[in-house]
Parts: sequence; C-alpha cells; structure tokens
Amino acid sequence: MEASHLEKCLNLVPQSYISQGQQFRASRSNLVRILLEKQKLPEESWNDELIEFLLSELAQLDSNNALGNCGAGEREGRVYSGLVARRNYRLVHGVGRSGDVTAVQPKAVGSSILNQLCTKLTLDFIRIVGARNAKSCIIVPMATGMTLLLCFLALRKRRRGAKFIIWPRIDQKSCFKSMMSSGFEPIIIENQSDGDELRTNVTEIMESIKRVGAENVVCIHSTTSCFAPRVPDRLEIATICKTHNIPHIVNNAYGLQSSKCMHLLQQAARVGRVDAFVQSCDKNFMVPVGGAVVASFHDDGFLSEVAGSYAGRGSAAPTIDLTITLLDMGVAGVKMLLRQRKENYEYLRDEMRKIAEKQNERLLETPHNPISMAMTLSSIPGRDSDITKLGSMLFTRRITGARVVVRSTEKSIEGHVFTGYGSHSNHYPHCYITVAAAIGMKRSECDVIVKCIDKCMTSLKKISPHKGSLSCNNDELSHIEDDVTNHDV
Amino acid sequence: MEASHLEKCLNLVPQSYISQGQQFRASRSNLVRILLEKQKLPEESWNDELIEFLLSELAQLDSNNALGNCGAGEREGRVYSGLVARRNYRLVHGVGRSGDVTAVQPKAVGSSILNQLCTKLTLDFIRIVGARNAKSCIIVPMATGMTLLLCFLALRKRRRGAKFIIWPRIDQKSCFKSMMSSGFEPIIIENQSDGDELRTNVTEIMESIKRVGAENVVCIHSTTSCFAPRVPDRLEIATICKTHNIPHIVNNAYGLQSSKCMHLLQQAARVGRVDAFVQSCDKNFMVPVGGAVVASFHDDGFLSEVAGSYAGRGSAAPTIDLTITLLDMGVAGVKMLLRQRKENYEYLRDEMRKIAEKQNERLLETPHNPISMAMTLSSIPGRDSDITKLGSMLFTRRITGARVVVRSTEKSIEGHVFTGYGSHSNHYPHCYITVAAAIGMKRSECDVIVKCIDKCMTSLKKISPHKGSLSCNNDELSHIEDDVTNHDV
Amino acid sequence: MEASHLEKCLNLVPQSYISQGQQFRASRSNLVRILLEKQKLPEESWNDELIEFLLSELAQLDSNNALGNCGAGEREGRVYSGLVARRNYRLVHGVGRSGDVTAVQPKAVGSSILNQLCTKLTLDFIRIVGARNAKSCIIVPMATGMTLLLCFLALRKRRRGAKFIIWPRIDQKSCFKSMMSSGFEPIIIENQSDGDELRTNVTEIMESIKRVGAENVVCIHSTTSCFAPRVPDRLEIATICKTHNIPHIVNNAYGLQSSKCMHLLQQAARVGRVDAFVQSCDKNFMVPVGGAVVASFHDDGFLSEVAGSYAGRGSAAPTIDLTITLLDMGVAGVKMLLRQRKENYEYLRDEMRKIAEKQNERLLETPHNPISMAMTLSSIPGRDSDITKLGSMLFTRRITGARVVVRSTEKSIEGHVFTGYGSHSNHYPHCYITVAAAIGMKRSECDVIVKCIDKCMTSLKKISPHKGSLSCNNDELSHIEDDVTNHDV
Amino acid sequence: MEASHLEKCLNLVPQSYISQGQQFRASRSNLVRILLEKQKLPEESWNDELIEFLLSELAQLDSNNALGNCGAGEREGRVYSGLVARRNYRLVHGVGRSGDVTAVQPKAVGSSILNQLCTKLTLDFIRIVGARNAKSCIIVPMATGMTLLLCFLALRKRRRGAKFIIWPRIDQKSCFKSMMSSGFEPIIIENQSDGDELRTNVTEIMESIKRVGAENVVCIHSTTSCFAPRVPDRLEIATICKTHNIPHIVNNAYGLQSSKCMHLLQQAARVGRVDAFVQSCDKNFMVPVGGAVVASFHDDGFLSEVAGSYAGRGSAAPTIDLTITLLDMGVAGVKMLLRQRKENYEYLRDEMRKIAEKQNERLLETPHNPISMAMTLSSIPGRDSDITKLGSMLFTRRITGARVVVRSTEKSIEGHVFTGYGSHSNHYPHCYITVAAAIGMKRSECDVIVKCIDKCMTSLKKISPHKGSLSCNNDELSHIEDDVTNHDV
Repeated sequence: MEASHLEKCLNLVPQSYISQGQQFRASRSNLVRILLEKQKLPEESWNDELIEFLLSELAQLDSNNALGNCGAGEREGRVYSGLVARRNYRLVHGVGRSGDVTAVQPKAVGSSILNQLCTKLTLDFIRIVGARNAKSCIIVPMATGMTLLLCFLALRKRRRGAKFIIWPRIDQKSCFKSMMSSGFEPIIIENQSDGDELRTNVTEIMESIKRVGAENVVCIHSTTSCFAPRVPDRLEIATICKTHNIPHIVNNAYGLQSSKCMHLLQQAARVGRVDAFVQSCDKNFMVPVGGAVVASFHDDGFLSEVAGSYAGRGSAAPTIDLTITLLDMGVAGVKMLLRQRKENYEYLRDEMRKIAEKQNERLLETPHNPISMAMTLSSIPGRDSDITKLGSMLFTRRITGARVVVRSTEKSIEGHVFTGYGSHSNHYPHCYITVAAAIGMKRSECDVIVKCIDKCMTSLKKISPHKGSLSCNNDELSHIEDDVTNHDV
Repeated sequence: MEASHLEKCLNLVPQSYISQGQQFRASRSNLVRILLEKQKLPEESWNDELIEFLLSELAQLDSNNALGNCGAGEREGRVYSGLVARRNYRLVHGVGRSGDVTAVQPKAVGSSILNQLCTKLTLDFIRIVGARNAKSCIIVPMATGMTLLLCFLALRKRRRGAKFIIWPRIDQKSCFKSMMSSGFEPIIIENQSDGDELRTNVTEIMESIKRVGAENVVCIHSTTSCFAPRVPDRLEIATICKTHNIPHIVNNAYGLQSSKCMHLLQQAARVGRVDAFVQSCDKNFMVPVGGAVVASFHDDGFLSEVAGSYAGRGSAAPTIDLTITLLDMGVAGVKMLLRQRKENYEYLRDEMRKIAEKQNERLLETPHNPISMAMTLSSIPGRDSDITKLGSMLFTRRITGARVVVRSTEKSIEGHVFTGYGSHSNHYPHCYITVAAAIGMKRSECDVIVKCIDKCMTSLKKISPHKGSLSCNNDELSHIEDDVTNHDV
Repeated sequence: MEASHLEKCLNLVPQSYISQGQQFRASRSNLVRILLEKQKLPEESWNDELIEFLLSELAQLDSNNALGNCGAGEREGRVYSGLVARRNYRLVHGVGRSGDVTAVQPKAVGSSILNQLCTKLTLDFIRIVGARNAKSCIIVPMATGMTLLLCFLALRKRRRGAKFIIWPRIDQKSCFKSMMSSGFEPIIIENQSDGDELRTNVTEIMESIKRVGAENVVCIHSTTSCFAPRVPDRLEIATICKTHNIPHIVNNAYGLQSSKCMHLLQQAARVGRVDAFVQSCDKNFMVPVGGAVVASFHDDGFLSEVAGSYAGRGSAAPTIDLTITLLDMGVAGVKMLLRQRKENYEYLRDEMRKIAEKQNERLLETPHNPISMAMTLSSIPGRDSDITKLGSMLFTRRITGARVVVRSTEKSIEGHVFTGYGSHSNHYPHCYITVAAAIGMKRSECDVIVKCIDKCMTSLKKISPHKGSLSCNNDELSHIEDDVTNHDV
Repeated sequence: MEASHLEKCLNLVPQSYISQGQQFRASRSNLVRILLEKQKLPEESWNDELIEFLLSELAQLDSNNALGNCGAGEREGRVYSGLVARRNYRLVHGVGRSGDVTAVQPKAVGSSILNQLCTKLTLDFIRIVGARNAKSCIIVPMATGMTLLLCFLALRKRRRGAKFIIWPRIDQKSCFKSMMSSGFEPIIIENQSDGDELRTNVTEIMESIKRVGAENVVCIHSTTSCFAPRVPDRLEIATICKTHNIPHIVNNAYGLQSSKCMHLLQQAARVGRVDAFVQSCDKNFMVPVGGAVVASFHDDGFLSEVAGSYAGRGSAAPTIDLTITLLDMGVAGVKMLLRQRKENYEYLRDEMRKIAEKQNERLLETPHNPISMAMTLSSIPGRDSDITKLGSMLFTRRITGARVVVRSTEKSIEGHVFTGYGSHSNHYPHCYITVAAAIGMKRSECDVIVKCIDKCMTSLKKISPHKGSLSCNNDELSHIEDDVTNHDV
C-alpha cells in the first residue's frame, strides 16, 4: 500500500497502527526495490504473495489492463475467459515484437520489463551454477530442439553457402530433427568407446572438416548432458572450432543442473570457442515444458541474431513460469537443489551398484557422466523383446523415465537409418538400463526406483522367455512398451 | 463425485439427499460425456467450475500427478513452485514428443487427450466460422510467423531444390521474416491499385512463375486478413497454384473472425489449391499470445509433416488457454462474437465516415477488407513527422492499435529495402490512419476511438508545424512514436 | 508498482515506456486513494484485479505476513494449509478483539482497516438503498438470528429486570429461537387479517404493554421483510416504542433489497423509535451465509454495546466477502440490482396472476409485501399431504425456495406450539404457495418458475389423491418433502 | 474422470494409455472412497489438488451450483462476485438450518456432507491428540468466547432457575464476557499460589457451592490452557461437579495442541464430570480466526442442545478451512506438529532459563503449564510503566504475543474490577514476561524471540527511568503499548 494511501486510514485505526503498517510495507517494498535494482536472484526465496504482487504490479503497466484503454488494432490483448486472464496474471501480450523475440513492446511495458528481468535472473542463475563468465542469455518460448534450429537458422546469415553441421552422435530425436528441419546436412560423428564410456571421436571431426572444408561447415553441434554410457563431448571440440573459425553450438539440454557440465562449458569457452549453449527450461528449472534458454559467453550480437530470427511474438508462459520459479528458489534454493541432486546421484549410483552385483550385472563405469548411469542387462534370458519388457514393467509400476536399451534396434529418422538406436553407437556391446539423478528428485524416489528394478528383474528372470506370462496384459502394454523404449526424449 | 462415493455418505445425510445429489451430479457428468463423445464445441457456454473440473480430471491422468510416481529420467514433470503448478493446472508435460508436436506422450495421457481434444474443438470452430470443408488442423505453440516458417521448412522435403516463395507484398515484418529465416528467397509481388484498394497483381505472379520455373517455387504465400487499404489476396492465386502444381500457404492471421475471409478460403480450396492456412490464436480466439493454428481442407498428410518438423516438445499453454476459451464460448458465444464484430465494423465505418467528412478527409473505399479501414490524413499541415504525431497523441490517450501511415517511410528488413513501408505499396497516394473492428471490441470503444481521433486531429491542426507544442512531452514520446508507427505487428 | 521501483527498470525498457507505465499506475492508484479518502462505494464497479490488489495490500499490514515476524503467543495467525491462506487472502486474524467484535487489533492492522472500511461501505449501501439517515452500522460474523440474540443480550444491561420481548408473529424459526436462547420470554402477537394480508395487531401490542408494564418489556421485535401473505409490520410500533420508552429492534432480514422496506424503516425512525435494524448479509448482498449487519439511525452507543457483547474475535470471512462484493457492485451495480429486482417482482406477479387464473386459483392481494407473493392452492383435490406434494415436485424439478403452506400444520418449537405454522396465523383461510422476487434473480428464472408451477399443478390434478403415482419416488422424497414444507428459513 | 468418460477418448489416444489413465484415476478415487467410508483423518497428507477436487465435487451437490436451478425463495445461494464464489469453492449456503447449526440442508447436500464430515474428522483429531474417549463434537462458526456463551445459554433450559457460574479466575477478557453476556452471574474463584504456580482453589469452590446451593449453579466453568504462571485447573473440579450434579464446561481454548491438557481432560471425564470442552479452531488447527469446537465424552444430547441454541445458519468458512487443513495434515502431520511443539517448548524453556540467569532474573517454575512460561522482570529499574516498555519494544521488533505483566494493573470489565489484571491473581509477587510454544512455531522463531528479549532488556536497563529515550517514538507507540499489555486475548 502506498504510504499516502495508508495515511487516509487515520480515521479507521490509530496513528501508531498506521506507522507500524508503514514499517511492514517498507520491508516488502525494499525487497522489490533490491530486485529491480540489482536484477539478480534474491538471496532468499520470495514468498508466493510477494511474487504474485510483483506480477500483478507489472501487469497493470500493460495497456490491456489500463483503465480506459480502447483498442483500435487487431491485437489488443483482449481475453475472453476470466480463467485464462487469471492464470496468465493478465500478462497477455506475449514477449517480443514481430522482428525480435526479445524486443520490448510499447503496448506491454509490464510484460517487457518482466521478460527483460527474467533474462537477467536467468543469467544470474547460469553464473551461479558454474558458467561464471556467461555474458548474456535469451529466453526462447520454444522447445530445446526448436531453439537449436533457430540458432542454426540464425547462423545461415553468418555462414552463407555453408551447409554441413558436424554432430557427434547422440540418440535423441529432436537433436537430429533440429538439424534436418533447418535444411542443413548433418555429418554424423560416431562415438568412440573408452572403457564403458562412449566419447567424442575428435579425429573423425577433424577429418570431416578437412573433407568438406571449414567454410562449408555451418557449425559443430556438440552435447553435454546425455544418457550414459555416452558422456559429455570433449573439450577439444571448442579448440577445433576456434582454430578453424567454425561456430560452436552446444546442446546443454539439462546441463545447468550439473556443475561438471557447467565447468566443462566454462573451460571450453576459455580455451576454445563456444558461440552459444542451449538449455531446456523444464529440465533445469522445474517448470512446465515450453521454453529454452540460449546463453553466450560473449556480447557479440549472436544472441540478438537468434532472437531476430524468431518471426513474431512468443508466448510469455515460459517467462512467467521461470520468473516465478527463480524468485521462489532464490540463491539459497538453487544451491540446495544442486547439492541435493549431487548427493542423490551418488546415492543412486551406490544403490544401483548393489543391485547390479545382486543380479549378476554390472553398473557401467561412466565417471564423466554426472547425471545418468547405466546397468547392464545380460542376465535376463531370452531375446531383446524379453529384455525390453523390463521397461514396460517399470512403467506400469509408476517408474517413469528409466530406459531399456537393446542392441538390435534400428531406426530411421527423416531418411537416415541409425543402427543400435538408443545406445548412441552402432555396436555398443551391452544391453542396459539407464536411470538418472535429475534436479528435484527425492531421496525416497531413488529407493523406490532401485527396489522396483531389482524386483522386476527378479520376476522377469523367473518367466520362461517368450511366454509373456507377465502380470500385465501385453497387448495393452504394446503401445507403451514401444513408446518407452523409443528414446524419444 | 462418483456415484459410489456418494453412497458412503449415507450416515451423514439422508438417502433422499443422496439421490438428489446424484441427480445434480449426473447433469454435469452428462455434459462432459457429450463433449468427449462428440468432440465438438458445446452449444452453450460451460461455466468456470466445469471447465476447471475437466482440466483437473485430465491432469490426474498425467504421470507427474499420479500417486506414488517415481521419476528415473531427466524430464519427469517436476514443478518447483506451487504457483506455477497451480496456474498450469498441473499439466506440465507440454504437447507432442520429440519428433512431432501433435504426438501423444505415454507419460502424459491427460495432456495428450487435452491436446487432441483442443484440436477437434478448434476444427469445429473453424468450420462454424465458415470453412465448412476444413478437414484437419493442428495447434502449434509458436507465433503465426514462426508457424508459417515451420510450414515452409516442412515444404522443403516435398520441394527438393525449390528455393523461391512468391509473396504478394504485405508490410508485416514477421511475414517477411518467416520467409527469410527459412532460408528461402521471397519473390515480392508489388500490389496493384484498384480504386483505393491495393490488390493482388496476378499477372506479375504468373510472370514470376514463368521466370523461375514452377518447380523452383516452394510455394505461394498469400494473405487474407490485412490492414486497409490492402485487401485479402485474390482467389486466382489458388487456381494458379492448382494449375502449376505449386503449394499454397495462406496467412489467415486474424481471418477466422471474418466470415468473408473464411468464405474466400473455402472458395479458394474449392476452385483451386490451398495446402494450409495459418492463423494466430490470440488474434482470433482472444487468448494470450503464443500459439497458432494450421488448418487444411485435406487429410493429405501435410499437417503431419508440419507437426513433424517441430523439433521437441512444445508449451501446452496455448492448448490450455484455447480449450478453456472454446468451452467458455460454446457455439452460442462464437456466433455472438462474430455478429457483434460485424456490427461494430459497420458502426465504426459509418462513424469514421462522419468524422472524415467533418475533418475534410475521406474514408478510403476498401469494401473487400472486412476488418480494417483507413481514413486519409491530407488536411494536417506540415511534414510527415507532423502527421505521425497523431499516432503518438492517440497512444498517450490510451487509443492503442491505430496506425498512422505516411508515404515517405523506407525500411530495410534483413537487407531488403521496402519503399513506402507500412502502406504495402511503393507509391500509395495518401497518408492515412487505419483502425480495425476486431473480435471482442466493445461498442463503447468504437465511440471513444472515433471521438479521440477527431479531437486529436483538431488539436493537431491548430499547432503550427514543427513547433512541437503538444501537451505531451515529445522527447519522452519519441520512442513510443517510433514504435507505434513502426508497423511491427 | 511504486514510482521509485519503476525507475529502476530504466535499463530494461526506455524512459518513454516507464513514463507511460507511471501514468497507468497512477490511474489505478487514484481509485484506491479515493476509496480510502471517501470511504464510500465507488461509483463504478472495481475490477477483480484491483479488488485483490487492495486485499493483498491490506494483508501485508498484518503481523503474520510481515517479513521476519516471530510469534511468542498462542494466537499468531499461523496457517497450516497454503490453500487456506490463499483463499483467505492471508487475512487470518479475524475481526475484533476479545471484548468487542469491532475493535481494532494491533497485530492485524490490515484486517482492522478492512473491517472498518467494510463498515463504512456497508453504511453507504444502506443509505443508498433508502435509509438515508442511517448513522452507523456494524458487521457481525453470525447469522441474522444470532445477531438478533446478541442485540437482546446487549439490551439486558440497559433494561435490568425486564424479561419480555413483544413479537408480532412471524413463522420463521430462527426469529423465535433468537428470543428463546436469550432467556427472555416472547409475547407473541397474533397477526390481523386485512383483506388477504396479515398485518400487525397494534391494539394487542398496546394491551400487552399495559398488561406486563413497559419497564418489563426488553424490546419490541418487529419484522419488515417476510413471506406473503404476511406484510411488513406497521409503522405504529415505532411510535408506541417512542411513547412508552421501549427499545425497538427490527428484523429487516432481507429488506435492504426493497426500497419500500427501507422507506418504512426511515419513516419509523423519523416518527418513532428504532434502536437497531438487523439484516442478513447473504440475503441482501449476495454473499455466502455467515454475517449480519446491525444498523442504527443514531450514534447513541447501542451498536457499541452490541459489539461489546460478542465475546471473542470473529471470522473475517463475512467482511472479506462483503468488501469484495461491494467494490464489485459499485453504486451503479447496486442501483441496477435494485431496479432489476423491482421489475422482476412486477413481472413475476403478473405471470403468476395469469397462471392463477388458468388454474382456477387466485393470487392473494398483498400490496404491502414488496418481495414475496402467494397464490391459493384450492383447486388441487385431496388432503393437505396431496397439496404439499407440489412443493417436492417443484424441488425435484430444481425450483427451490417455493413454499407450499397448508392450514393443518402444528409445530412445537422450544415448547411453544404454533397452530397453522408457516402461515403466520392460527387460521389463515387458504392453502397457498409463495414465491419471491429476490435480489439477483434472473428474468429467465421467473419464466421457468411460473411454467413449472403451472405444469406441476396440472399433473397433480390428474393424479387420483393418495395414489402417489408421481414420477418421482415418494419414499425417497419424503425427507425432502418434509424439509421443504418445514418453513425453516 | 469417470471411467466411462475416459473410454470416449479412444479415438484420441491409444487404449493402453486409457488403461493407464484409469489406473491413475483409480488410485485417487480410492483415497476419496476410504475417506468417506472411514470418516477419519487420512494417514498421510492429501495434496492440494485432491482436497480441492473433493470440495468441488461436494459443491456440485448444492442446488445453487446445479445446472438449470431456479430460485423462487429469498435465500438461493446467489453470489454476485466471481472472486467470492471462487474463494468459497461455491459452497455458499453455510452450515445448519434455522433451528440447529449442525442440521443438514435440503438445498445444500454438499455443504451438509462437508459439515458432517468435518465434524467426524475433527473428532478423530481430538481422539488422536489424547481425548481417546471423546464421543462427539460440533463445529460452531463463532469465537471460543461466543461458543462458551452458547453452551451457557443451552444450559439455561437444563438448569431452570440457576443463575451462578463458578469460575476459577483467568484473566482473559472473552472468558469473562461469555458469562456476563449470558446474563448469568459469575462467582470468581481467586487462584491459590503453589510455589510459583497459580492453581485452582478447590476449597473456595466447594464453599461457594455450599453458599449458593448446587441447584443454583448453572455450571462450573474451568480452564485448561492458560498463560503461566497460572496452570490448568485441577482435576478435582470434575469430581465436585459429579458429586454435586453440576454441569462442567471446560474452556480448553488451545489445549488440543498439548497432550497434557488432553490427558487431564480425559482423566477428568473418567473420574468426574465434564459436560463439554470448548476449543478454538484458529489456536489449535492453524486456521483463520472464526470457529470453535465443542466436544463431549458423552452422547447425551447436550451438544445437540448447544447446536439447537444457535439461531440461524452459520458461516461455512470455519468448516471449509478446517476440512482443508485436516486433510492437508493427515495423521502423520498431526503427530509431527505435536512432537515439534513439545520439543520447541522444551527448547524455549531451556533458552529462556539461560537468559534469565544472564539477566539476573528467574524463569518461574510452572511445570503444570505445558505451553506457556514466564520469566520475572525484577531487574529493570524504574516504575511499572518502564517495565511495560519491554512489551512495546518487542512488538516493534516484530516479536508478537509476548506479554509483560506488572502488579499494579486494575481493570474494570462490565462493572467488575479486577486487581492485578493480567496475572490471574490479586497479588502475584512478580512482574514477568510470558512466552509460549504454540503449535506451528518454528525453531528459528524461538531463537529470535529469546535473543530479542535479551537484547531489549539490556537496552532497557541502560536507559534512565522515565526518560523515554528509546529508539522508537513513544507517542506513536502509546496505543500499541496499551494494546499489547492489555491482555485481551
């Protein structure tokens, strides 16, 4: 309540009460002032009221919420449903303008401030989690894959004539799609085995560059966060990019949650070249699917070109969700989440090792992968289809996200046939199951997951192969089974 | 409340009460049944409770809301903030899967049903407003411009080697951007004057095709809804497309609100070829910015190819907002909105004519434009910069969306220089102001707009040119002025 | 957003945007300022955002919401459930202090302001609807009946030794209960027939006073709003009270919605004595059940004594609901509601007359009752139990609130036996059905009600008496039937 | 989603998805079934969605929410404001009927079920926290004081002619008010010193009974939870009541949070007589102020008489808040809260002892008081007014609820003058400050409170008496100071 308003209440409550109210008010007002001044994450979590207060204050700066506003155009922020207005905090003009998804809108001052502010808070987050030298970022209201695509489209203007994207293979459909939809041609670099790990084949990258000519390479498209036994791509890619003057776009999909991924990135930018790194909002910030963040260690205008390649205004939903979440977390919350994730990773790894031993399996040694881990599935008798049953058994027991990978899978995407699809490799020697320790996971979830895998494996071994005498109806499950082994992240 | 649950309350209230409760329950349950069975807009508006009930029921089918669910993957629908969970109705998995933005997700049965259902309701809407033969549609969680871009990218696979998009000029930045970002080369067809109207130059289109060869044309990209004095593109484009076997993508940005635009489309599909027509969610359905609808008169798989070009999952926000809104409208609401818009258009046109006469101006005769209208600005003394002041004067008086267009404007977008930018023409003979009668506009808004334009023009004429003695501070306004005459829709 | 906060955003959006935002902000701020300054109903309805903004601003003045607050007492406004906190706008300290339900609380400055403000707005409402000379009012978080009881308890201190309450009979259980629970003894004044109307028997009141002695009368407890054929009590009661120096408490339960009731009250206060008039919040303001308003034409301290008789703090729910509603209505809304109600009354009366004629019945002539009306039920064959079936038939057809009154009913309440209970009279000559035109009723409801009564009567006449061959199961309905003819308002 | 509804979605998603959705649905449905069947607190906390789902399901059973309902009465549950409807979950008919605040309403089946269910859950809570033999309870939508008053009014009918209430003194205004407003005459029993404790003077009670005659005693009105150094009343009262056949009403205001208080009650009922025990909703259940619970160890009809003394319908707000909270807590939550409170009590006591020693004060030995504790204030120089400054100092430092009690206070309430008001005694030998460990308190609050008391005392001792040179403005604080030492709980 504005100080002057409170003074009007003098005939309702005594002056001493008013003074006290002013004091309470000032504390809250101070938090808002600090946020807008510093444009960094608050140290401590903001409570829900304060967050909603800020959003409501911003909304009233948008023309559609201004008293007496009349709309003479075709896009005036009119909202039919009260439910819709409410759930969007009346911030309805979206973000950006037709030419630039980060541009401010004269009709929507509040939405514009919100979007800018959210960008600053997100940048602060990125620095806190490890990319201390990050200089700028933009929030794009599209999936990670689409955002990678947008980066590639933006590069077209810088790399006239270039048509190849060098891409160390990762069996994640939308990564591949992002290149295919862009109209460029991916050069797929098969991964190299290094113990159990699958790692970047640097030599093959260099050879590819030599083969097609650096000037014909749009960019190298590398990956940090990925499913074991693949591990984050090698630092050397950045050096190669620097040496050959090739843009380097990093798919850091869920890497913000891992200090290892972030330090790798930070290091890569220091010794080599990183033009932009792209991350998913939902996977890192625990918000609904819908947005991605493109960040950069430079202020070289590339992010503006990416933003300027988005044709039209975008949904403000990712911005709203992200802002709420970042204020709700505060620096303290971010650090706690990261610490808990790391602890869960170690706990889950140790527990998985125990059941691996018990089941005569082996937890693959993938020390470079800080999030995902894989356990061999060699003790289950029968054909691959018997092994993949484990996936659907887990799914119907409400364990989601565990992936069973068998060697035989072939998959054709946009005309390219991938052998051993799901394993990031043409000939990985093991069938395996992956589990991940992701941000926000609870310790109790680790326990249930491990116990359930153990139990399902034991059951599965008891069933004669190909009998399908599982408790759950196989026909009904066929779809899901297909889906859960489809690796369509 | 499930019938069996209510029976448990027999020791709390008498049987007769239970029976009555069952009856009330059954009425509501029946509405839900009909919706899911028919998958069409309800005749009458649903109330907010029922809408939220449906969303909550759907949300509980998603794995992240299932009791006892454990997440072992990297994307498990975890939401940090209660506010975020709540405002998204706990529908957090987004829409689509990595390869296809319309695909169903095994982890998110409720979200998947919602998205499919929303598509059906939207299709019903499209048919109701005039495209009776529409066969399918998809909802894309991106701006109209980005969605056009997605269509072009999808066409790449069908039109290997083609690189030109024929585009009757419309001075709307994101339309142009959508082509530039796609990497194709637009062939800009200058509009033809026809009285006051600017219309498609069919001859030039035909010549362009002859010049580059039909097989090298990715598509013709035409436009229906636009600012006067431009009018919807001519039907002949569809015939040309059919004849030359060229895809035809129509930008129907805010055309769903006009039965004229819709009948034009319907007619075009009947006599010629229309591969897809794209429309903005916010401009037609009165929802927040963020989504677009691609619709087709065929079941020929093109929409699937468009959906399959979206790399990754998308935000469910457009789907949620659209579903709520469509249920809130019902068929009755849709029809009322369309009728009111038409009446407002006629009223606004008549009122604008009156002040035009009073101000010694002329309302341009653009009978083919059913939404927007323009009035000349020839009586304001001084240079163009004096005329554009009208725009900022209106803006500061809370009239948003009126556009002042002067002849002198040159604008360079992505390297192309447009003469007379904003007027869709190199040499339109008048300066003018446009106003539109858009869906959801209130009659009272028409009155205020007309009165305010009248008043501001009168004020403006009194000021000596170039003195800037307007009541509002010119420096402060310079930004906005620039913005509001920027025509960046 | 505070002006100084907005200035911090200068690096996010241009100065011109900030200025415009400030302007929007100022408009809204101005509405709040006027409200707090004038403490009267706003002329125009406030929108939901503004209402919630005010509540949120007030809530932050309460200690439980103050940052860094520590509670060392036993009542610190802690709330366990986030849902509960949210739905109560975090205003959890209730209203009043242990000794006075209107007192301000040092721990809850915001709640205290809200309560005081609500009182002022309510007083303004009361004046607007006709009691122009009303001087003060209090909001009591209890039912009308309990609030009447509180008035009687407060009178005890002023009327030591007195033990009778003179009460013109109204067959409304809680009115009678309010007296019985207070420990005083009601002297029931049987109503007089005047044509079809039942009116105050002034002579009997005077005789009663003479009989028990004015000094032994705690108060006269009269009624305005009531079911036809009873009509508001006569003005003369106020004169008698003045003459004999007897307090006068008026049960104006739902009389605020009728200008006739309000003018009667205003007149009574002018020519005689009215100590307080009590009204229900839900029935007059369209809020949930739970509160009542005690108002007075004097500033004589009686209301403070009533407030001071409430032992403990009360729920703030009625205050919150009432404040929201009054701001949502505004003066314009109040006037519209009253006008519509009056028009509905006339419409309903005319339509009921038509079906009365059709059904060979008669609409009772009760011109002094401005809200309720009654139609005879003499053409339905059979016993009383056959006639009362009409009530349950209507109820199961979702017509609620219509009352069927038969002559035979005897009812014992707290030991007193009322003959002809429901008809306010020992020997009213007709069976009848009552319907009312209450505030907020829609025209379409009138139509359905009339049509349904007509139809049910026709059905009922076709059935042989005592056969019970109605479409609805009689056993199941027995409870409801009993309830709906129970007249337990 | 009803099973049959989900089946309609077969053309939208595959059968396997439908099956999985059914399974998720069934889990949730099962929780609701168990709740309605057992009518006990769930073992584990319900999440917000499920709670809101239940409330929404119940709301749809109320006639005001039924599709096609028409209201022909004067109270039809119409709600003007959407905000109000929403925040009340559309449960607007309140609780009870005119004659009984626990009665079910035919128009409001859902509200009626909710109220009954809430009663059952509350009874379960009462048993869990220690009163294992409790047989019934009712929820009254009024403050504790008003609810005590209602009990006294109900006793009037059982104790015709009786007029005294025997009341061991507790300096809590609303307790005293509850008796004064009822019209009965309190016989105040001064407490006895027992070490530092103030305890029931049983002899004086017995003498009072002898003096006025047992048949003239309405009831004994004893207290459990209270501020130290007073402690819960002695068990013997129950025995006396049994022996003399005198009703016994226990004010157990915030005693549900203490197993000691509850066992005392349980014991009292076993060896003697307890007619009803009354507790505050806000103080025990962490809900907003507004309701109280009357509970009994018998099914003897007394609670019905209390409910039947409430004239009119009551607010459903306490019921709604309580139901939400109880489901949110679950048995697990209740037990955790009680354990934490007990631990906090011990921690706070130990910490207070430390600063007492440091400040040359003494923590009073009051082992029978399980919630509140008191520390002497003898080392602060100057007059009483200097000592009470401590209270306002704490208050302005956001420590609320600490009470400073000095010997000199006289207070007149309703004509009775209390000496040493606030200390429950005419001549308690110490000035002191009380703090309490109440349910929901956080450990961090204990720390801040103790530190702040220590610091303020140190400051206070440095100031010369009567100079008022405190940092905070004394004039401004005078009101608050008065309020916070007023002991108006």
